[in-house]
Amino acid sequence: MNYRITLAYDGTDYCGWQRQLNLPTVQQELESALETLEGAPVTAYAAGRTDAGVHAEGQVASFRLTKEFSGVKLIRAINGNLPLDIRVMDAAPVPDSFHARVHAKNKTYRYRIFAAQVMNPLWWRHAWHFPYRLDLEKLAADARQLIGTHDFTGFTVADCTTKTRVRTVTDIQIERDGDLLTLFFSGSGFLRYQVRAMVGALVGINRSRIAAASMAELIESRDRTLIGAHAPAQGLTLLKVEY
Amino acid sequence: MNYRITLAYDGTDYCGWQRQLNLPTVQQELESALETLEGAPVTAYAAGRTDAGVHAEGQVASFRLTKEFSGVKLIRAINGNLPLDIRVMDAAPVPDSFHARVHAKNKTYRYRIFAAQVMNPLWWRHAWHFPYRLDLEKLAADARQLIGTHDFTGFTVADCTTKTRVRTVTDIQIERDGDLLTLFFSGSGFLRYQVRAMVGALVGINRSRIAAASMAELIESRDRTLIGAHAPAQGLTLLKVEY
Repeated sequence: MNYRITLAYDGTDYCGWQRQLNLPTVQQELESALETLEGAPVTAYAAGRTDAGVHAEGQVASFRLTKEFSGVKLIRAINGNLPLDIRVMDAAPVPDSFHARVHAKNKTYRYRIFAAQVMNPLWWRHAWHFPYRLDLEKLAADARQLIGTHDFTGFTVADCTTKTRVRTVTDIQIERDGDLLTLFFSGSGFLRYQVRAMVGALVGINRSRIAAASMAELIESRDRTLIGAHAPAQGLTLLKVEY
Repeated sequence: MNYRITLAYDGTDYCGWQRQLNLPTVQQELESALETLEGAPVTAYAAGRTDAGVHAEGQVASFRLTKEFSGVKLIRAINGNLPLDIRVMDAAPVPDSFHARVHAKNKTYRYRIFAAQVMNPLWWRHAWHFPYRLDLEKLAADARQLIGTHDFTGFTVADCTTKTRVRTVTDIQIERDGDLLTLFFSGSGFLRYQVRAMVGALVGINRSRIAAASMAELIESRDRTLIGAHAPAQGLTLLKVEY
């Protein structure tokens, strides 16, 4: 039987989704919980392979088990074998053809910036502390230039092995609540580090730290050295995957 | 020189505000940072003596130092000697007569409930996981009965030593964002455990677990055994103190 689950995790103490020898990862925790149910090794596929320290509220994974479970029973059975910082929020049997990564149509990420002199200690696990002033109107205007279909070569890593670096960003929303800025990025798919590089570029251009006249020029340059550091992992959360 | 500071802390790893022998407390951390600046012991007074596990975004404290500091310099000097889960957000010299506890006029607390079958792991440090359905209209109606000046004997602990247990709750606001319920309680002062007891009572009456026909009757009874358990510490944050 093929199953689809929605996962939430606090990524602070994990080296990302993908299994790595002798390192704590979400995939390893999930597969070890599934092995307890199955009595044999199980491989799980995730919609997005989140990096070290990145969180999820709506990660989707799929896997096969020989036993049949209702959604409710499967949630309880897996959560009983997972650490408290990883939770199955939803589960359901799905047709054999479903694959969480291959069939993902759209993803939404959230990036939180705490923009104040002193970091609020209630946010340090889940927001980037940025102690300098940001021009919100400029941030919104620059974000609009990121929306659309572009070659995002400048926004990923040198060893990125995907065939094409053209991606479509369908929407960017920015919300402000006091000192907390929240950015939402939606698109059909993102390159490795792309969201964090976009946040780094938005902030870098805002502070005139990037040698590009505009976000459009920065995208056009395809030069990953221009952006500088991408924004840190703890601000990023995979919020939603659509199929 | 007398100083007033605004403190934020993640209370998860502290046994509350008040200094206790051989236990980590916020007061002890703050006073030890102040002693480093002063070269002698300093006593700090807080507006609200938060209990173990309770957080703060707007705790206010006052203390005297012989040296003179500007607000900006004092923020940096204290934060340089504090652990990362306690931060001075604001600081200023104040008239000699100012006392953070004695002169507090109004306090606002926030209580967060994550009301869903499975706990979102990004909230476990800062919300109470309540996996049963709540009737929000009833919650709001019951909350309105708590507003006003009442004898809150039923909402504190047996050994509460204050002279009177009459307190005035000036406002209760309830917000909902998906599965996250946020309650804001304002008042001139609260008894020990009162906010958590009010949350416990609101939830208990909502689920018909309390043998009282109404919140008004529960208040009137002054019977602390009726409420049962007060809501857990991790959902509570001291948000604001007004003078």
